Amino acid sequence: MPRRTGVRPGGGPTAGTVETEAELLAAAHRFADLAGAAIRPHFRRRLDVDNKAAGGGFDPVTAADRDAERAIAAALAEAFPSHGLVGEEFGATNLGARRQWVVDPIDGTRAFILGMPLWGTLIGLIDDGAPVLGIMDQPYTRERFWASASGAFARAVDGSVSRLATRPCAGLGEAMLATTHPDMFAAGFESERFAAARREARMTRFGGDCYGYCLLAAGFVDLIIESGLKSYDIVALIPIIERAGGVVTSWSGGSAAAGGRVVASGDPRTHEAALKILAG
Amino acid sequence: MPRRTGVRPGGGPTAGTVETEAELLAAAHRFADLAGAAIRPHFRRRLDVDNKAAGGGFDPVTAADRDAERAIAAALAEAFPSHGLVGEEFGATNLGARRQWVVDPIDGTRAFILGMPLWGTLIGLIDDGAPVLGIMDQPYTRERFWASASGAFARAVDGSVSRLATRPCAGLGEAMLATTHPDMFAAGFESERFAAARREARMTRFGGDCYGYCLLAAGFVDLIIESGLKSYDIVALIPIIERAGGVVTSWSGGSAAAGGRVVASGDPRTHEAALKILAG
Repeated sequence: MPRRTGVRPGGGPTAGTVETEAELLAAAHRFADLAGAAIRPHFRRRLDVDNKAAGGGFDPVTAADRDAERAIAAALAEAFPSHGLVGEEFGATNLGARRQWVVDPIDGTRAFILGMPLWGTLIGLIDDGAPVLGIMDQPYTRERFWASASGAFARAVDGSVSRLATRPCAGLGEAMLATTHPDMFAAGFESERFAAARREARMTRFGGDCYGYCLLAAGFVDLIIESGLKSYDIVALIPIIERAGGVVTSWSGGSAAAGGRVVASGDPRTHEAALKILAG
Repeated sequence: MPRRTGVRPGGGPTAGTVETEAELLAAAHRFADLAGAAIRPHFRRRLDVDNKAAGGGFDPVTAADRDAERAIAAALAEAFPSHGLVGEEFGATNLGARRQWVVDPIDGTRAFILGMPLWGTLIGLIDDGAPVLGIMDQPYTRERFWASASGAFARAVDGSVSRLATRPCAGLGEAMLATTHPDMFAAGFESERFAAARREARMTRFGGDCYGYCLLAAGFVDLIIESGLKSYDIVALIPIIERAGGVVTSWSGGSAAAGGRVVASGDPRTHEAALKILAG
């Protein structure tokens, strides 16, 4: 019998909605399928890129982003009309609901506009405040990473599915460190702390985006240190990392679900060492 | 009738070997197929990584690297026994031959060991000193980029083939700049020149490897600036960039075929502007 991830006993906007984990996961896969179908025709097309950042930063919003979020929003409204939806492009609906879907149709817009297949569609589900389900889908390569209570899994480009598991890493000196961009870190404290961690790590790679967190869950990256994340950049990834055996927190060891300064490790020993350095 | 890329009228080790462009290109595709088959089982396996760098740098040689180069060397010896072969792992054979194959089975070993699909198998052909044919193959996603006299092409993950063409870019202010790693540049002159170019560019992305050059040929990246390359890191990419309408040279404007400091641009105007900055 499918495990029930939550039952609200009457009252409130979600009264009567008791979805099983299997139902929620099946819906999440469907949302990812729809988003991928909406995004795929736009990838590696020569797009006009809006610049939505006030103040001149470079933060492209593509037609793909909007098409995908619309597709997910419509499917969600039909499947679970009482659930909440938090997305980068469309603000938030049903904010009081117990179940909140947290969506970023294209995490890694820089990678996307450059044609690199490291961006992904992030679909996360928060239940009663805790991230319980997440999908990272790469629509171009057709890779998908996901997790719910029953475990963390990946579908490879050839369609084969395997269980995700982080690898052991005794400390920073063994750690392969990945981060999306050196400019993520504000001058001063953030840059200094990142530089200190980087000096200790065995190797550093830039340019990972959400793909990097999935490779950590798969046991090929040991440590990710980032900053300036939004909630929708990380919520979907938290179950994937944790169900694979990893740890993901803020730099001060609290919940990563709000974004900001985030550190993820495949091995708790590496995480502890990283937190010591990042605390300053 | 197939165009003949070169005829040597008697004498020397290549006497009697008159391959058409089509024959050479077909052989190159076959070499890439063999290399991919040799490499694929090793990708995203938890490998032991040798450290071949004297002095402690991190330069992994994997079993995949060696298996692929052996496969290519055997196929080349059977197809064109008089041709030369220059490879990272196996030194050089038939160095005096007019036709030299320049091979790097896994360009982007850091990307490879972290599980990121941006590494590639590089197979280039030098004819009488000039790079005339090149393949970049990504065995995991099954993408392939190649060029010979008849043009530059890409095979996407879905198997569709399209012609590569760079995009216009009037100058550095519009340029999307990609480079593999900030640590490529030696402290002092190289780092200062790269930083100066980066300040002018519209956006910078790290973590491209050989994949970045192919995205430049495809019209999604405008400028790549790198340093410390070996010949086998760039020879296969030169025809792909040039046949797509781009320019690739050393920082001082000479041939890029020897490696070292390399700059590639999709638009000659961007290239000219970059060369001015890189000259110092």
